[in-house]
Amino acid sequence: MRNLYLGLLHYPVLNKNSEIITSAITNFDIHDISRASKTFGVKNYFLITPENGQKSVMGKIIDHWQKGFGATYNKDRKTALDITSIINSVPEAIEIIKEQTGEEPIVTATSAKKDLAYRAYTIEEMRSLLREDGPPIFLLFGTGYGMIMEDIPEIKNILEPIYGTGDYNHLSVRSAVSIYLYALTKK
Amino acid sequence: MRNLYLGLLHYPVLNKNSEIITSAITNFDIHDISRASKTFGVKNYFLITPENGQKSVMGKIIDHWQKGFGATYNKDRKTALDITSIINSVPEAIEIIKEQTGEEPIVTATSAKKDLAYRAYTIEEMRSLLREDGPPIFLLFGTGYGMIMEDIPEIKNILEPIYGTGDYNHLSVRSAVSIYLYALTKK
Repeated sequence: MRNLYLGLLHYPVLNKNSEIITSAITNFDIHDISRASKTFGVKNYFLITPENGQKSVMGKIIDHWQKGFGATYNKDRKTALDITSIINSVPEAIEIIKEQTGEEPIVTATSAKKDLAYRAYTIEEMRSLLREDGPPIFLLFGTGYGMIMEDIPEIKNILEPIYGTGDYNHLSVRSAVSIYLYALTKK
Repeated sequence: MRNLYLGLLHYPVLNKNSEIITSAITNFDIHDISRASKTFGVKNYFLITPENGQKSVMGKIIDHWQKGFGATYNKDRKTALDITSIINSVPEAIEIIKEQTGEEPIVTATSAKKDLAYRAYTIEEMRSLLREDGPPIFLLFGTGYGMIMEDIPEIKNILEPIYGTGDYNHLSVRSAVSIYLYALTKK
């Protein structure tokens, strides 16, 4: 059984007008995704942003639920946030994972686009991979209008999109993370 | 193939101290769940609250994205909200469903508790049921610390909980809805 790590990338991502931006961390991205990660056995959940202002404000929110009033007010939320941290970059996440596991993680992006530059896994294949022994899988999600994959050379694979029942397919990142974690860890 | 309807109940639900309350509608409950509902073919998504103040404020948010500036700013969001409305009660939802389909829906609650008063479906069974022809399924989710099922006599069945990989199991309602819709409509 491999370890599963999760990253939510806030830079470099695109906005609506296809400009490169640093997106804002939202409170629901912290809580909903921490809770889903904890429920489905993710080892660490990294919110990734290079902006110090964001790190400071969002760090305070996490501290509130972990060490402040929130820690006694809602223990389930504290437990979920035990695995959550805000860090600078994908390379920093990889360093942390290497320290924890002694192995280089396989960085896999989730992407709605088909891109032949990457090995694309189906959900089924990735689930089998996770059950085997081997290096950890680091699953990377973009925010805004999607991550700029060519600017993240650490990405080695992609994971097939979640398909809806029709043409409309615009899940929030929180919904997408929840569904992937359920589908990838289902017995 | 049956029609699938979804309701998010804000009254009668419990708070942390097991008191009966009307919970507040959150903006993310509108958008994330509308988008997931639209992606997985839900016919209508009802936010259910008897509070007129809530209905008025939240109705304005939906209007903004449907008819106001938001409708041209973000068409995908407009499309998702086409199926979303705020109504008073479970009986009102049932009336709307009957008008649309000519049939009495099967009201099924999602519940983390095992309760022998109700017929409990596994996700697998409910998926098979949805593929058959027959009356619509109306899937009901609670907010806060859970709905008070005995106060909603329209509920006829329950659906098994989503299980995590370990003991921790505290998904947000947004995550739970997304996972159920994916699992119930998967081919």
